[in-house]
Order: sequence, then C-alpha cells, then structure tokens
Amino acid sequence: MTPQTIPPAFVLVRPQMGENIGAAARAMLNFGLDRMRVVDPRDGWPSPQAVALASGAGRVLDGAQLYPNVQGAVADCDYVYATTARGRELTKPILTPEAAMRDARARVAAGQRVAVLFGPERAGLENDDITRANAIITVPVNPEFPSLNLAQCVLLLGYEWRRQTAPAPDLIHHMARTTWANGAEVEALGDHFEQRLTDAGFFYPPEKVAGMKEGLRNMWTRLNLTQAEVQTLHGMLRQIAYKLRGQDRSD
Amino acid sequence: MTPQTIPPAFVLVRPQMGENIGAAARAMLNFGLDRMRVVDPRDGWPSPQAVALASGAGRVLDGAQLYPNVQGAVADCDYVYATTARGRELTKPILTPEAAMRDARARVAAGQRVAVLFGPERAGLENDDITRANAIITVPVNPEFPSLNLAQCVLLLGYEWRRQTAPAPDLIHHMARTTWANGAEVEALGDHFEQRLTDAGFFYPPEKVAGMKEGLRNMWTRLNLTQAEVQTLHGMLRQIAYKLRGQDRSD
Repeated sequence: MTPQTIPPAFVLVRPQMGENIGAAARAMLNFGLDRMRVVDPRDGWPSPQAVALASGAGRVLDGAQLYPNVQGAVADCDYVYATTARGRELTKPILTPEAAMRDARARVAAGQRVAVLFGPERAGLENDDITRANAIITVPVNPEFPSLNLAQCVLLLGYEWRRQTAPAPDLIHHMARTTWANGAEVEALGDHFEQRLTDAGFFYPPEKVAGMKEGLRNMWTRLNLTQAEVQTLHGMLRQIAYKLRGQDRSD
Repeated sequence: MTPQTIPPAFVLVRPQMGENIGAAARAMLNFGLDRMRVVDPRDGWPSPQAVALASGAGRVLDGAQLYPNVQGAVADCDYVYATTARGRELTKPILTPEAAMRDARARVAAGQRVAVLFGPERAGLENDDITRANAIITVPVNPEFPSLNLAQCVLLLGYEWRRQTAPAPDLIHHMARTTWANGAEVEALGDHFEQRLTDAGFFYPPEKVAGMKEGLRNMWTRLNLTQAEVQTLHGMLRQIAYKLRGQDRSD
C-alpha cells in the first residue's frame, strides 16, 4: 500500500515585505507547490501587499497557515530543512538544494511530512530557528556575490523539488505534427542534388569527386531533416534548375 | 592543449523595464556569469533604472554590449539557445535548462562560443528571434501556472550553468573545527550511561535487559555524535548523578 504523500511545506519565517510573500507564493506555484506557512510576518496577516503581488497565485496565500513561531510551524513535521546563505557554526549537515530535495522526495514518498524554512529578507534565519531544523540547505552561489532574495531562494528550491519529483526528459518532445524524413527520402534528396550538381559541373577535379560526394551524403543525414524540409530542398533545386533552363533558352 | 573557454553570453532581447535588466544582472552574477548582451532595450541604453537595481552587480552592466538586433548579438556565437515559455511550431529541439547547460558546458569546454536568448517581459521571443537559435530551452514549470519573469528565468539558467560547471558536493562540508567522536569515545559514553542506568535500576525486567542495552548502544552510534556532544552527555550524566547523591544526603 502506498502511503499518503504530502508535498513539502515552505515556511516563511518573519518575512518583512508583503510583496516578497506574494512573490514567494508565485514562485511556489510555478513549480506546483501550494503548502505555505507564515511565521510572525512583520506587517501582520493577511497582507494586502502579498495578495496584490501574488495575482494568479492568490490561492497559495488563501491556504497559507499562520504561526506565532517556528516551533509551532514545524510541530507536525518529521524532517525540517533550514535555508541559509552561508554555513553556520551549528553542527548540522549542509546540503545543496539538489541533494536536499532528493532527500525530501524520498522522505515524502515514505509518508513523512517535511518543511523548508526561509528566513527574513535582511538577516536570514537566526540560529535559534536553525536549531529546530534537521539539516541546512545552502545554494552554491558565487561567493563574491551571494545575494539571493527570498522569492529567488523559494524559486530555486521549488525548481529542485519539481526536478526531483517530476523529471522532464532532457529533450522535451514537441514536434507532434512533424514527420521526420526516413532513410529513403534522405537518399533520394542526395540523389537529386548529386544529379543536378553533376549536370552543373560542380564535381571537379575528378580525383576529388568521391570525397565531395561522400561529404554531401554525410551532411544530408547529419542535418536530421524533416519530411517538409526535404520537400522544400527538392523544390528549391527544381526551381533553380527551371530558371536556369529559362535563362539558357533566353540566351 | 586546453582551448580558451568563454562562459555563455546571456542576451536580453528587447527588454522593457530597466529594473528587470538590473535584476537579471544580479541573477547572472549570483552564479558567476558576467557576459551580458542587450538587444534594442525599449527605454534606451545605458539605463539608470538598471544601474539602480543592479547595485552590487553594476559591473555586469558596465561590461554589457548593446546590439540593434539578435543577428548582431549572436554573430560571433557557435551555438545559440532561445528560452521560451512554451513549445513553438518551429522545428527545433526543446531542452530542459539542465540538458541545455550540460550541452553548453561541453561546447564551451571544446572552445565554442555559446549564447542564451531571453525575450521581452510580456511577449517573450518572437519566432523571428528563435530562427536565429540552434535549440530552444523551456523551463518545466507547472502548466497551470507557468509565469516566470525575466530575472527568474535568468536565475534558473545561471543556477543550472553553475550546477553543471562547478558542481558542489551533495553534502557541503563545513564543520572544519568539529571533531567527530571516534568509536572508542562512543563506546565509553555507552558504558557510562549503562553503568549509571544500571545503578538507577533502569534495566528491568531481566528478560528484556539485553535488548534494552542493545537498543541504547545502537542509538549512540546512529546519532553520529561530535566529540563535544559526547563530552556534554558525559557532563549531563555526571551532574545528574551528583545532584541525586546530594538529595540522598539531604534526605
């Protein structure tokens, strides 16, 4: 029996600007997350600024739960990650977003409830908050310019959650209505070009002809053409030949 | 001989708001990228709004190159990726950010120059821009809420570039000044607890003693304690025993 799985809760700890809460809600929903918790927001709750900026992601705010402190916000959680901009003196494992969300995926699949803490905009999480977490997440940014705002940090964790749990194929197939040219069609195209170019005296000097023809054959397959592109190339060649014949006649 | 490697250029195509150009500069520098190109920005160039928002990343703007069109911006590039929010009718491979930046890493390592195109805020890239690219990148967002702004898209591509080119270990080691307890220290801690708990009559009933002791021994190793934590636990136990003796005396 598969246990019930509950996606991670993202916990905004003492956020300052309502706008950033709204932007965080959008960033969460971009990657299919909607379990927001808010701890002691500076400007009260609900936040009109958050609602204004969330626009299409308003339902994340509607469903958000408010807590007076971190302990309350993670009371029902089996495993908690705390995001920090830099390592702390606390003895906690520090994970990349990738490793943390892979770990979270495994825990969630096993029926655990997990949460990710995000600190206030300026100072980040306090050590007292971090002692409530089981592990730390640090985004490996450029050490000379490590500034990430709240919504950006939420965005990157949401991206990693989705990447770990709903991996897209590297090559996203899209060309549903496209038909690729098959081997015979590519061969016929090669024949057509070879014939016309022979007529035009393209293959010269004789000792290089074999290599030139081989190079062209190789190009046609390497291009990985669609059936439509093969037809276009046939058409181009026919039209040029037709015009040339016209010019020959007009001479 | 290693060829000279040039990191990807990020090309902002017809950006509208200077603020978004500034935010994009920050997002790039977060992940160590500083080769920005700007095509026909709506409000002219240089942009005071961009400079204001870039703050610490102003040098990315200082070094940015201005072009009248996409053709010019990618004229020196060997391979170009175009970011789009959704698949287009154009016959191009569509890659995830991960696959694209892995591909870019290989191309850059081989000495190629690559660029990533980012469209204007509202409409995104036009098909005419995309025909100048070799491949398309689409971030696999929640299809019911696919909104990503310009700086967020830049951030995610920068993140993937850094993840592919400067992979951090899953577990970022940090506890440089921490000494882990070794087997003998953990064993001595277990002995100490076992002795005190035996004195306190904790191990009962007799037929369960072996299992109780085994469970405790297992816990001490599972906790993966530091030397400092082992000392703290010894100290706690000694202090409690001392207090208990004191109470015994005061009775």
